[in-house]
Amino acid sequence: MTVMMNEMTWQDFADKKDDAVVFLPVGSTEQHGPMLPLSVDQIISTGLAKMLAERVDGIVAPCISYGYKSAPLSGGGPAFPGTIDMNAVTLMNLVEDVLEELIHDGVKKIFIMNGHFENEAFIRESMDLVSRRHEDVILFESSWWDVMSDDVMAQVFDEVEYPGIELEHAGILETSMTMFFRPELVKWERFVEDGVEAFLPYGIYPASRCEVSETGLLTTARTSSSKKGKLLADDITNAYVKLIEEWF
Amino acid sequence: MTVMMNEMTWQDFADKKDDAVVFLPVGSTEQHGPMLPLSVDQIISTGLAKMLAERVDGIVAPCISYGYKSAPLSGGGPAFPGTIDMNAVTLMNLVEDVLEELIHDGVKKIFIMNGHFENEAFIRESMDLVSRRHEDVILFESSWWDVMSDDVMAQVFDEVEYPGIELEHAGILETSMTMFFRPELVKWERFVEDGVEAFLPYGIYPASRCEVSETGLLTTARTSSSKKGKLLADDITNAYVKLIEEWF
Amino acid sequence: MTVMMNEMTWQDFADKKDDAVVFLPVGSTEQHGPMLPLSVDQIISTGLAKMLAERVDGIVAPCISYGYKSAPLSGGGPAFPGTIDMNAVTLMNLVEDVLEELIHDGVKKIFIMNGHFENEAFIRESMDLVSRRHEDVILFESSWWDVMSDDVMAQVFDEVEYPGIELEHAGILETSMTMFFRPELVKWERFVEDGVEAFLPYGIYPASRCEVSETGLLTTARTSSSKKGKLLADDITNAYVKLIEEWF
Amino acid sequence: MTVMMNEMTWQDFADKKDDAVVFLPVGSTEQHGPMLPLSVDQIISTGLAKMLAERVDGIVAPCISYGYKSAPLSGGGPAFPGTIDMNAVTLMNLVEDVLEELIHDGVKKIFIMNGHFENEAFIRESMDLVSRRHEDVILFESSWWDVMSDDVMAQVFDEVEYPGIELEHAGILETSMTMFFRPELVKWERFVEDGVEAFLPYGIYPASRCEVSETGLLTTARTSSSKKGKLLADDITNAYVKLIEEWF
Amino acid sequence: MTVMMNEMTWQDFADKKDDAVVFLPVGSTEQHGPMLPLSVDQIISTGLAKMLAERVDGIVAPCISYGYKSAPLSGGGPAFPGTIDMNAVTLMNLVEDVLEELIHDGVKKIFIMNGHFENEAFIRESMDLVSRRHEDVILFESSWWDVMSDDVMAQVFDEVEYPGIELEHAGILETSMTMFFRPELVKWERFVEDGVEAFLPYGIYPASRCEVSETGLLTTARTSSSKKGKLLADDITNAYVKLIEEWF
Amino acid sequence: MTVMMNEMTWQDFADKKDDAVVFLPVGSTEQHGPMLPLSVDQIISTGLAKMLAERVDGIVAPCISYGYKSAPLSGGGPAFPGTIDMNAVTLMNLVEDVLEELIHDGVKKIFIMNGHFENEAFIRESMDLVSRRHEDVILFESSWWDVMSDDVMAQVFDEVEYPGIELEHAGILETSMTMFFRPELVKWERFVEDGVEAFLPYGIYPASRCEVSETGLLTTARTSSSKKGKLLADDITNAYVKLIEEWF
Repeated sequence: MTVMMNEMTWQDFADKKDDAVVFLPVGSTEQHGPMLPLSVDQIISTGLAKMLAERVDGIVAPCISYGYKSAPLSGGGPAFPGTIDMNAVTLMNLVEDVLEELIHDGVKKIFIMNGHFENEAFIRESMDLVSRRHEDVILFESSWWDVMSDDVMAQVFDEVEYPGIELEHAGILETSMTMFFRPELVKWERFVEDGVEAFLPYGIYPASRCEVSETGLLTTARTSSSKKGKLLADDITNAYVKLIEEWF
Repeated sequence: MTVMMNEMTWQDFADKKDDAVVFLPVGSTEQHGPMLPLSVDQIISTGLAKMLAERVDGIVAPCISYGYKSAPLSGGGPAFPGTIDMNAVTLMNLVEDVLEELIHDGVKKIFIMNGHFENEAFIRESMDLVSRRHEDVILFESSWWDVMSDDVMAQVFDEVEYPGIELEHAGILETSMTMFFRPELVKWERFVEDGVEAFLPYGIYPASRCEVSETGLLTTARTSSSKKGKLLADDITNAYVKLIEEWF
Repeated sequence: MTVMMNEMTWQDFADKKDDAVVFLPVGSTEQHGPMLPLSVDQIISTGLAKMLAERVDGIVAPCISYGYKSAPLSGGGPAFPGTIDMNAVTLMNLVEDVLEELIHDGVKKIFIMNGHFENEAFIRESMDLVSRRHEDVILFESSWWDVMSDDVMAQVFDEVEYPGIELEHAGILETSMTMFFRPELVKWERFVEDGVEAFLPYGIYPASRCEVSETGLLTTARTSSSKKGKLLADDITNAYVKLIEEWF
Repeated sequence: MTVMMNEMTWQDFADKKDDAVVFLPVGSTEQHGPMLPLSVDQIISTGLAKMLAERVDGIVAPCISYGYKSAPLSGGGPAFPGTIDMNAVTLMNLVEDVLEELIHDGVKKIFIMNGHFENEAFIRESMDLVSRRHEDVILFESSWWDVMSDDVMAQVFDEVEYPGIELEHAGILETSMTMFFRPELVKWERFVEDGVEAFLPYGIYPASRCEVSETGLLTTARTSSSKKGKLLADDITNAYVKLIEEWF
Repeated sequence: MTVMMNEMTWQDFADKKDDAVVFLPVGSTEQHGPMLPLSVDQIISTGLAKMLAERVDGIVAPCISYGYKSAPLSGGGPAFPGTIDMNAVTLMNLVEDVLEELIHDGVKKIFIMNGHFENEAFIRESMDLVSRRHEDVILFESSWWDVMSDDVMAQVFDEVEYPGIELEHAGILETSMTMFFRPELVKWERFVEDGVEAFLPYGIYPASRCEVSETGLLTTARTSSSKKGKLLADDITNAYVKLIEEWF
Repeated sequence: MTVMMNEMTWQDFADKKDDAVVFLPVGSTEQHGPMLPLSVDQIISTGLAKMLAERVDGIVAPCISYGYKSAPLSGGGPAFPGTIDMNAVTLMNLVEDVLEELIHDGVKKIFIMNGHFENEAFIRESMDLVSRRHEDVILFESSWWDVMSDDVMAQVFDEVEYPGIELEHAGILETSMTMFFRPELVKWERFVEDGVEAFLPYGIYPASRCEVSETGLLTTARTSSSKKGKLLADDITNAYVKLIEEWF
């Protein structure tokens, strides 16, 4: 049977909800360079959540499609058309309401799969607010790039050097996983090498003062492949299955 | 080329955004009886938006998947697991931010396609707030059931009498269009006749005092078919194409 | 003794509050054409609440005088001087606070009498929020036009055809009841025939794009009379007395 | 012609709005001892506003009937049934919206007549927020007890000593003016002498720790009379007419 | 051992928190004429809190350094550079969160020492909101100028007449106490006589319409001295020690 | 002359404000183990801001003393008494208001010096909101640990291995700088070795499920010294002076 809540009837959901881990993917609508669709963060967070749910007999709630504001040096920033940035309060309220409602329905285990770097602090604020009211519910959140193993990273960055997660926007990790989850949406023929020199350890506003590459790329996606995408997805889900066993 | 923003790169979006109508589907995650998935309001609003965008060369923004609170007598209410209800402020902020960001990107024509009865007043509040700041942008909102022609309605309700839109929840209209847009998600084998006697012209809280059928059905879906779904979808999009020509 | 809370001392109120239904009229300050005062929605909601309170030995709380934003095609919209539109959040907070305070005082039965079409969704959001915290209190809300009997409607619309409730703004229903409740405030000498062609099944912003009649009338008030006003008021209160017996 | 906005048609209002001072009375729904109605602060603020509007050809907007939280030692506090306390945010939003809408209609001179001690700081916050956006509009606010002349005060407190404005709750000032404006609502037969010893120069919470008299009286109303009420009302309006000439 | 929370380790704080009164000074960053620093309200509220904490073995929490908006006639208003005005909502949330967190840590007695005239109504709103959730905790608030004894006032205003607390901004009271608490920050060589004629019993916006002296002084500081500052500080703390014994 | 705004008169501030960089330190009130005071993040952010202001002739605004919620694995979390956690909305509003007011005063260059790991995302949200309204003002934010040079880090971590910034809470960096800025507040006699094994790449709620050391230490402070503190402070300010020259 499907693990996707969007494909379930309410009775399907009712049958599983008490014991199942419910995965909430949080993505964004954000530029990802000339090759990748605006929905990359939705695709990867949902794709990983689906793999996980299938392994642990969980449920995947509808993805939050609009995320927090893209920062110039980790996502290109607001100057790129198609990047749709939510205010902090909006994202926090949205996550808070979804968590409250799942808990209202009797769910006891919630795993938020974050696919957009800038979302995390705001998701955690919502989790904290909800958790104070529901101490018996376990709320877990992680960004997928935080659990990759050294071994797999070495295989993925076999030719290109890992630029660090901040600059890994539309780079090998995201490109490979999009190739794996939704190959038809990757326009490899538009591949270019582009990027920025370094992540800056400070924030400067107006954001327009930060120079970003014209393509929106922060690093190269060269050597990306669907195979690497699968390798990563397997590695990440393996790590999360262990954490689920440990925490839930 | 695709009309789905989620499948576009930022450059695809940038090329079209200045002139195109951008459609924003607003749905819900809500029980729709034993046969239909929780995502019916997302499916229909997105499906119609996609048909329209293809006819007028527009763009479909990612669907808002979580909608305003389901009312017992128009959607079954909060007692059904799987119904995930947003607070008014959450939905209003979300719509407001998406509109602001589309406008920030240079979009001048926005069509909000509402697929969930209870959303409308809150969507319009957001439109009003945004519109005061951007008087040059045209914001249009409609619920799809408000433009069906008498002729098509007569064909659709050939055996069953139309119960009125409030009770037409998981009825012939929604079932037929889900059969048309996503036939694989309709579990016709679970069909039952069920419903409530009448829509009540008042609200009573706690919502638990309102008696709803055990299945969540408010009316019958008997005689639903994919063919009727297509008839409806064509009829509705025809009406909207005329309105788009008139207003935009 | 008076049923009007505004005319009671705190001890008068204290004596009745535990068992009585408290009626909260919610109106607006909104244009009602050339003949009717800006306070029509306050007058009718308060007038009906007072009649009801006298029949069921209830209490009428002070009317909320400022309501949600007037829509062009159901109230003329923001372009008419004298229409004072509250934001959604303002009205929701106000209703929420009044309900909370009545409940804090020990009131167990609250009936919100709505007199302004656009208020309803926001009132219900407040009711829902309050109700979750006070499950033992019955909160009931209705707009007076939702319970009129077919029989009386036939008598009221004896010459003029009923245009539907959306356009019945400053029409026969509201004019007749204002004539009944506050005859001195109706300027019949300014009577004109005016109106709009049809209610539009969509919202368009900026609101200024919607054409409304110059007078603010959406339909005709011809054949209005105080007698019809009494007929309506009696019919409506009869219906509500039955509902009060049923629900409270 | 009437000065009461609630009694005007929109065209009446439109004719006067550009030049007239619009008075916004802000009251409360609050216990005022055994003799006076819960609406004293509405009655006095509206009564004075009406007198003023008649003298300067102004307009009186609908009174804000629900005010900020009653403090134990200036109004009896939340323990008295019938006292309906708004949260700060609610009152601030309400005043802000009403001011914005009056200004939107073209009003250039607004006078807020405060009748409830605890409202003032919150009203001024709203005025400040609005004023920053509309520097050409004059916003004026005053509590009526702040402009009484020494001469009249000596006549009013001919036998009883003035207890200071904080304790003058349901005392001679408010009782006399209610006798003047709405004599039928004063229940003199319930007169008792009661009160508290002194106003405390600090706030203590929970409010229930503050001892208030059982009647809700903070001071005596002995020697109150309609004649004193008229004396006060004339004195106050005289002072305000001068201030209006000075500032508007 | 220190009474200043900022100088304690968490274990120092943990040892005392259950029984101690925690003092929360609330100040402002606001012009205080040519002689006094912008932090006068922080200095005095913290200084008094420290003296008190030393006498009753309490704890002084970090001062809230930014206060509510300065009013022209009680603090000079927004036109003076260096006056940093918080919105009402900001101050209310800040006080609310600090109180909640102290209570979360087990604190049962909290004394808010207010040093800025305009703060008080907003502080009390926060206290009320918190107190409803924690009825077992005593929350006390006072502005230091409300408890000065007549005897000491006579000694302090030996030559200059007391102008009333509203105009006592950067006057003898504040100047003397700053001389006492932080003599090195008083620039007496810049002393000038300046001031306004009278406190106005109304508010007028835009604030720029209120004429204030060029120096920001509302009254004279002539005859100020550190000795008077000590006299005042002792007098005020004496009064509060008595109140603490009475209430806590 | 002083660079501390709290020590300036309004005229001192007015003389410098147009050209000077204004530094806003944002700290926290948070446990820092058995040796360090609760105000470490205030001390370091203010200390560095002061050094910088002295080098570039800037101004240091009053420190924001209460910061965002401490996370278990980067600050010990809410279970430690003395940790006073602000909600996201509170911190965001506070930073937003301070920025708006500085800009209102004519300041054109603002540098936010962050001293508390968890603050950053919320500070940046406020900067973004303010920046959209004031595109001519430069807003810069950085956490001091993001600009340390490899060379100095090697000297500081001469014996102990650098645990990574997340765990460097009350470790060598913070201890050494507190020793440098406020040696009298460090209780070295309470030194213990304690800590956690690793920073976890995920968040789990309720926060109480995260095991933290009993002392609140996440890593060791062994080998800390005032000399290392000076080395760090010089290194950090050197880096920022360069960035100030580059950006302002």
